[in-house]
Amino acid sequence: MTVATVASLPAPADFAEPPSAADRTRWDESDREARAGRLRRLRERMASEGVDSYFGVRPEHTRYLTGIRLGDGEDKVAGVSGQFLVGPDEVVVLADSRYAIQAAREAPDARIENVYGNLNVRWPELVGSLGARRVAVEAGFVSQATWTRLTAAAPDVDLVPVEGWLEAHRAIKEPAEIERIAASCAVADRALAALLPSIRPGRTELELALELEWNMRTGGADALAFPVATLAGAEAALPHGSPGDRPALEGAVLLFDFGAMVDGYRSDMTRTLFVGEPSARDLAIYDLVSRAQQAAIDQIAAAAANRSGITGLEADRAARDVIEAAGHDEHFGHGTGHGIGLATHELPSLGKRAPDAPLPSPTVFSVEPGVYLAGETGVRIEDLVSYDTGSGRIQRLTQFPREIVVVGLS
Amino acid sequence: MTVATVASLPAPADFAEPPSAADRTRWDESDREARAGRLRRLRERMASEGVDSYFGVRPEHTRYLTGIRLGDGEDKVAGVSGQFLVGPDEVVVLADSRYAIQAAREAPDARIENVYGNLNVRWPELVGSLGARRVAVEAGFVSQATWTRLTAAAPDVDLVPVEGWLEAHRAIKEPAEIERIAASCAVADRALAALLPSIRPGRTELELALELEWNMRTGGADALAFPVATLAGAEAALPHGSPGDRPALEGAVLLFDFGAMVDGYRSDMTRTLFVGEPSARDLAIYDLVSRAQQAAIDQIAAAAANRSGITGLEADRAARDVIEAAGHDEHFGHGTGHGIGLATHELPSLGKRAPDAPLPSPTVFSVEPGVYLAGETGVRIEDLVSYDTGSGRIQRLTQFPREIVVVGLS
Repeated sequence: MTVATVASLPAPADFAEPPSAADRTRWDESDREARAGRLRRLRERMASEGVDSYFGVRPEHTRYLTGIRLGDGEDKVAGVSGQFLVGPDEVVVLADSRYAIQAAREAPDARIENVYGNLNVRWPELVGSLGARRVAVEAGFVSQATWTRLTAAAPDVDLVPVEGWLEAHRAIKEPAEIERIAASCAVADRALAALLPSIRPGRTELELALELEWNMRTGGADALAFPVATLAGAEAALPHGSPGDRPALEGAVLLFDFGAMVDGYRSDMTRTLFVGEPSARDLAIYDLVSRAQQAAIDQIAAAAANRSGITGLEADRAARDVIEAAGHDEHFGHGTGHGIGLATHELPSLGKRAPDAPLPSPTVFSVEPGVYLAGETGVRIEDLVSYDTGSGRIQRLTQFPREIVVVGLS
Repeated sequence: MTVATVASLPAPADFAEPPSAADRTRWDESDREARAGRLRRLRERMASEGVDSYFGVRPEHTRYLTGIRLGDGEDKVAGVSGQFLVGPDEVVVLADSRYAIQAAREAPDARIENVYGNLNVRWPELVGSLGARRVAVEAGFVSQATWTRLTAAAPDVDLVPVEGWLEAHRAIKEPAEIERIAASCAVADRALAALLPSIRPGRTELELALELEWNMRTGGADALAFPVATLAGAEAALPHGSPGDRPALEGAVLLFDFGAMVDGYRSDMTRTLFVGEPSARDLAIYDLVSRAQQAAIDQIAAAAANRSGITGLEADRAARDVIEAAGHDEHFGHGTGHGIGLATHELPSLGKRAPDAPLPSPTVFSVEPGVYLAGETGVRIEDLVSYDTGSGRIQRLTQFPREIVVVGLS
């Protein structure tokens, strides 16, 4: 057994304070400055691909390029509000009357156009105002019905389907983006630390999930990154399970997979705790997963330090080798990690099907191997890591201990 | 002044209890029975439009026709999981390994197909297994990129873009659907009643919004219908504002627009409260909005009672006439109401641009006139109403009083 038990239970004060108003002002300013560079990179891509304009609809891209913030799922009610056109010299943001004030405040550098309902009616004039002839369109996010209507509305303007352009740019993180992901990690760390004294056998997954959510949302999070997963005992063997009325069980694991959002940037962490005395089986699995995670992190650190870089395939392999050597190949069915930022899952990917190319840098991703024994138990340990081949450094942004944490002892 | 002040502050016990486990079991059974009829109606439409299959991707449709539940926004991470094909005799549900257990449990009458990632690779075999030659596809929800890939994958299978078929069916509500919307209304009613003693000048919109959310989620709601809006004083003039760090102000209005979700079905209500002694201006606006809402409800009730029915245009006109007669035409910029069910906003629509055709029946919709004086104040009163020209009855599902409620008196 190589993994230790924590000397004492983590406490909220062990982690960074929630961001201040001054932090948020600084981030706003840094975003506004950064948008010029983000737009320049997009326009370079546009030029190299022979289009003169770009029509974006993904909410993450609205935020990234214009500054306008839509809540999760708000795009469904916002209609076209927040969708945008980037021309050679100008950014045009669409906003109906409900969003006019917000758009003017959050996107001070854009031209705001009041569009409600039928975008196709306004389309010829909008693309005309940019002198657009060939418009790159986010084809993975624009519906077939909208595509057909826009094509019919301005038959002389070519729509060019594109995918993944801004996703590739967003994988490379600015310092102020990494700061916010780290702040979001700290909010999550503190929230779990604050929850520990409440955990005891019999409390349900749903109760604990709600309390952890509450801790985050009253402790600096603007929102959750995604719904909290709390899974007790054998339920932890479901890598994508949802909390239910099942109670935490004495002598079994209790897995928390959760994340906060701070100023639009998300965190994602998993801790598998032990409620009461751990079983030998669970401890052995925990030790294995812990070693697999450390192996991946060590290899990623070495690749950053020697500036050679590493592929998502290699990073995944580092964790997987440890688990396979223990005969648990079939019990680790998902990838080792994923990028994170304005979206919870974004590029790069660390997994079996990841591209055989060096990871972008600087970037932030999760390292989260797991071993799942159906009907018995499951363990996953997930941390966020920032990775920079320029400075040669990696940094673990999640600060909550990875050692064994036993809770609910009476 | 025609609107009265409540005799005493509403209390949680004034409203129905949260649903029991027995209610939920009954609803599950009723859904399972109802799915046969829902599928029959869809197949009748398919036959009349000359298609042999239907490809659905909207999460509300997944729930309606197969029983599988996805949380709000979960479709973004679920990939194709939950998407489905309806053939002449069979329903096929797509689910990757993460969703296999859930799909089997929630969609016992469907064939579950394990599809992960590239749907286009499996598409020829899937449509082939149904004998499909012409597939109706939800064109407003399938991306252009997916459409292009599916077309290329099976060039002999025609994709027929369709919109609004199931939306029209969902507007007509089954008794067990109305029951759940009513249960969701009661959860919201109780939550606001429980909040009243906490409201005092100086508490911020965000604090009160979070507390109201907490009351719903610990009081029977599975989730929120949408994020709580709490708007103080002049902020209430923004029909689509979000809560901020602004405090509730003595002598000003405090508007709450919120809803719960119970077993997938949503509620939506708005109450405009008064913090401390109301001003004469605010009382006059409240009285006007209250009379406008009552005028619409009276006319809807009369149309149900005499079985003649009413159009969404006429219902909107009934409320709008009262507000226009008071010279506030320009201060009521949105429609009078919208349908609600598995989605917060669905058919039918009550507004200036609503179709000139009788409302479907039985159905449930909001009645929510408002008057907004920019920079000064805003009042909206929103209730859900079930409407049935068969029984000749309408019923107000929101039970929280519409009379004047004054809170925060010291």
